[in-house]
Amino acid sequence: MSIKFEIIKECKNTNARLGKLFTPHGAIETPVFMPVGTQATVKAMTPQELERLGIKIILSNSYHLYLRPGYNLIAQAGGLHKFMGWRGTILTDSGGFQIFSLGELNKVDDDGVFFNSHIDGSRHFINPEKAMEIQMALGSDIAMAFDECTPYPSGKYQVEIAARRTIQWAKRCKEAHHSTNQSLFGIVQGGTFKDLRIENANKLVELDFPGYAIGGLSVGEPKSLMYEVLDYTVPCLPISKPRYLMGVGAPQSILEGVVRGIDMFDCVLPTRNGRNGSLFTSSGKLTITNAKYKNDFTPLDDKCQCYTCQNFTKAYLRHLYTSKEMLGSILGTIHNLYFMSNLMKNIRLALLEDRLLEFKEESLTNFLS
Amino acid sequence: MSIKFEIIKECKNTNARLGKLFTPHGAIETPVFMPVGTQATVKAMTPQELERLGIKIILSNSYHLYLRPGYNLIAQAGGLHKFMGWRGTILTDSGGFQIFSLGELNKVDDDGVFFNSHIDGSRHFINPEKAMEIQMALGSDIAMAFDECTPYPSGKYQVEIAARRTIQWAKRCKEAHHSTNQSLFGIVQGGTFKDLRIENANKLVELDFPGYAIGGLSVGEPKSLMYEVLDYTVPCLPISKPRYLMGVGAPQSILEGVVRGIDMFDCVLPTRNGRNGSLFTSSGKLTITNAKYKNDFTPLDDKCQCYTCQNFTKAYLRHLYTSKEMLGSILGTIHNLYFMSNLMKNIRLALLEDRLLEFKEESLTNFLS
Repeated sequence: MSIKFEIIKECKNTNARLGKLFTPHGAIETPVFMPVGTQATVKAMTPQELERLGIKIILSNSYHLYLRPGYNLIAQAGGLHKFMGWRGTILTDSGGFQIFSLGELNKVDDDGVFFNSHIDGSRHFINPEKAMEIQMALGSDIAMAFDECTPYPSGKYQVEIAARRTIQWAKRCKEAHHSTNQSLFGIVQGGTFKDLRIENANKLVELDFPGYAIGGLSVGEPKSLMYEVLDYTVPCLPISKPRYLMGVGAPQSILEGVVRGIDMFDCVLPTRNGRNGSLFTSSGKLTITNAKYKNDFTPLDDKCQCYTCQNFTKAYLRHLYTSKEMLGSILGTIHNLYFMSNLMKNIRLALLEDRLLEFKEESLTNFLS
Repeated sequence: MSIKFEIIKECKNTNARLGKLFTPHGAIETPVFMPVGTQATVKAMTPQELERLGIKIILSNSYHLYLRPGYNLIAQAGGLHKFMGWRGTILTDSGGFQIFSLGELNKVDDDGVFFNSHIDGSRHFINPEKAMEIQMALGSDIAMAFDECTPYPSGKYQVEIAARRTIQWAKRCKEAHHSTNQSLFGIVQGGTFKDLRIENANKLVELDFPGYAIGGLSVGEPKSLMYEVLDYTVPCLPISKPRYLMGVGAPQSILEGVVRGIDMFDCVLPTRNGRNGSLFTSSGKLTITNAKYKNDFTPLDDKCQCYTCQNFTKAYLRHLYTSKEMLGSILGTIHNLYFMSNLMKNIRLALLEDRLLEFKEESLTNFLS
């Protein structure tokens, strides 16, 4: 089966909607946040722990898996789900973003990209056809088109070339993609230029994808500019298809994205922050290694029901992080992912109960200050 | 309550016995292996995971906790159990072994030991009274006397001085120790010298401790020599008290220790090996990073019922370790601790069914080759 998207309820005052995304590996309530499992593992988490956290969908990175352990190996293993022991849904990106941000770029032209591996310097070539071959071998439920992402700030001429190339590549991805169990999403580029974004979105929609992503945001531009791009880009996308804002996961940005009509989000932030001791709470972010927590025998967040908050104190967590104990990263990741799951659950509940804007304001005041 | 030890069954052909150790935090079937939680955490494991593995008792290191986060902080937290969220039994060592092996030793005399911290070089003094103060503050169920451990090889004169000092210190520990919920074990020293070990054991037994440890072994001497020391030392210890062989945890040594009458073992080996990808299996030890496992889509050990073996392949585990993913260490530790728990369970079953020696021979042939 390919994916199916159902809108359960539309928000009266905003573009937000409550939905359900049916995939070959289960149904997902939207808006949803997808934790990132870069190298076929959400860092510090067992698949069992992710399930306990109520997580139904994760993202994994084609670029990393292509380089290590290799997509042929994962295909031999029976696909990425089986390889990593994950029963839920997987979305893979195309590798485009990583090639442009991590790899040592050698040459980009209309055909594709030559780059050197960030691991061993070896030379590689990826083009739209190859990106499809890789993702079909991985067997993710949702694959992403191969795109060219420009940094911020970039000149309009550069962004325009990349955006047009992204459309050409999206066409080639669609032609190269053939899988009954995998759905291919297109990606809108166009930087922070209104005309380019709108042109790009319209051309992409003509190609008719089962879902659309907005790429090239959260790459250094001010947040207000990102929200502006969403304001004029989302309305170009069909109402009936899922909309995915790539690489965005700060709680504030998620709230702003949801009210603008975004259904899916991903970001390394909650897991990376969790490993580093930067922990989300209902009254703001907290740096657990701070000396003031040395003798603090209260939980991280006394309103939180997660395993970490139910069983451990700030003093213990601080000890784990300052002693560089792995358990610190494990408990911090559990907490931050629980926080994200809970935030999304509360967003969906607010949507259902017609009080999304109130929830957003309340949340921004309480914990995003 | 203090501990109580019950012998359920004695082996007919060896000194081994099946027992039950009652502690303020639960009952433990012996022979038992205790995982090490050096810094108030068994590395890479949540307390929940340890419970799932059937682990009832862990060891924690006074030396490390004294230096970081400090025993007063742990006392403020309500003791070590509460601080680290561990509901089972805790045994703490005295710090003696670590001071002599990790710390930069400054001066040892009959009063105590001056040493510099291995973390920040700060100067510290620990003597028997201080070691008791620390462990009473930690509130472990079983505390260990402060001893002087000599390296191998050491001259007889040096070992004799340390062994006699250990007896003097054991007396002072007993006088300084006052806790209704903590039991203090004595430690036999004497290196690999038969007369010193026997003299030391006899003097220690005169002091009447609720349990006895054999220290200063597995410090570089040949295994055969360690077994020889057990052969003549264990018979000096009272039958009715638990016997603990410190720092020993290789499966082969555990089997040899059990038949010689040892009830308790601890070692960092299963957890450290687990983190490094050296994994125990029913057909021998395996280094998972080996290239031959790259395409091996079978479990680590197809006879093993642990979470790791039930859900992941060697190829995936190898990928995690070679990519330096934390999940590799987590899954490797789960597997190795499960292996140890299972080994101890099988030892106890063999004891119960009067086939310990057969089990030992069989095990040595199968998985210790």
